Amino acid sequence: MVYRQTEHTKAKKAGTRARILKEARQLVTEGGFMAAAVAPVAKRSGIATGTIYRHFPSKAELVAEVFRHATEHELQAVTAETQSDGTAQQRLIKAIETFALRALQAPRLAYALIAEPVDPLVEKERLSYRFAYAQAFEDLINEGMEQNEFVPQNASITSAALVGMLAEALVGPLAPEAMSYEEQLNERESLTQEHKQQLVNAITALSLRAVGLKSQP
Amino acid sequence: MVYRQTEHTKAKKAGTRARILKEARQLVTEGGFMAAAVAPVAKRSGIATGTIYRHFPSKAELVAEVFRHATEHELQAVTAETQSDGTAQQRLIKAIETFALRALQAPRLAYALIAEPVDPLVEKERLSYRFAYAQAFEDLINEGMEQNEFVPQNASITSAALVGMLAEALVGPLAPEAMSYEEQLNERESLTQEHKQQLVNAITALSLRAVGLKSQP
Repeated sequence: MVYRQTEHTKAKKAGTRARILKEARQLVTEGGFMAAAVAPVAKRSGIATGTIYRHFPSKAELVAEVFRHATEHELQAVTAETQSDGTAQQRLIKAIETFALRALQAPRLAYALIAEPVDPLVEKERLSYRFAYAQAFEDLINEGMEQNEFVPQNASITSAALVGMLAEALVGPLAPEAMSYEEQLNERESLTQEHKQQLVNAITALSLRAVGLKSQP
Repeated sequence: MVYRQTEHTKAKKAGTRARILKEARQLVTEGGFMAAAVAPVAKRSGIATGTIYRHFPSKAELVAEVFRHATEHELQAVTAETQSDGTAQQRLIKAIETFALRALQAPRLAYALIAEPVDPLVEKERLSYRFAYAQAFEDLINEGMEQNEFVPQNASITSAALVGMLAEALVGPLAPEAMSYEEQLNERESLTQEHKQQLVNAITALSLRAVGLKSQP
């Protein structure tokens, strides 16, 4: 009986933890990490504020886990494309489109994951994910060079550059200082689907130029 | 007499202010904004810590002014090239080389200006300068398209992308999380001149591909 009770307690604890993460993630999607303070997360999870700390030692740890989950999800969506079937060119197009379209569909989440000022604990995670994105692109660029699809280049520079390019084109400043991040996010959220698609097309074309796509014979 | 004394006091005050800024800038070049705390700046300026606050209301204001001076200096070096004589291609090459070489010669300063986590006051300045860099590139890309040197493109996307590309290729993560920023900066500082030049060449070639340089007839 003791064993079964423990299992039940464990399952309940895991359920609460998952609920906390889900609500925190939702708050980040709506308002960035700034919106995911412990009190609102607890309120939306239907638990007391103190209960959060039974599952996460600090707000930073909670935020870091939300960051990891969300970014891992994005990274997998992109690497699924870089590692899919097709030519390097086709896979690069799909990977860039996936990254760009997802960022444009959820501008606040994209800003939070890519650029929002965060705790050093989360900043460290962010750097390691940026490196992981660059690695996925570097493998693809190396393959593209081997297949004679892309011009000879320093693949490590190009891949880091692609990561910076995507970040800046999708969440970089839209206007001089007069425009706050809040205003910029509102502007990005109000883009029409047609405008979003134009941006995705421009970013994809730019990426193909950056890797030096050779004209097909 | 009162007038002359006031002039003298003014000049002395301006001199102290300039010395504080110079020493703070030197500390940033050596160790980033983290190293430019009020106490060491005061010590190196040969004044009492409290005296700093007669010239700058807060550490954030001092750091913001160092940031502004240093970044303005970098921006001018780059725009001097984008607005110089020559074809758009020639000017783009010079501008990118200038940015990249300067960043590689002073990696700690580059990291501080481009990526170091900073006070929101400084973050706001940083955004406005990133926008200014993008603007300089956008003007040049538009000219290059008019002159039929570059392929038709969304110049606003390409210019933002160039800014992100330079930042990431020059101060982005060099390795997964195992490597701290301190280790990465040490690694960048230990590059040979030859290796630096290779990186500059790779970044320049990438930029020319990104803007879609047309092959000359």
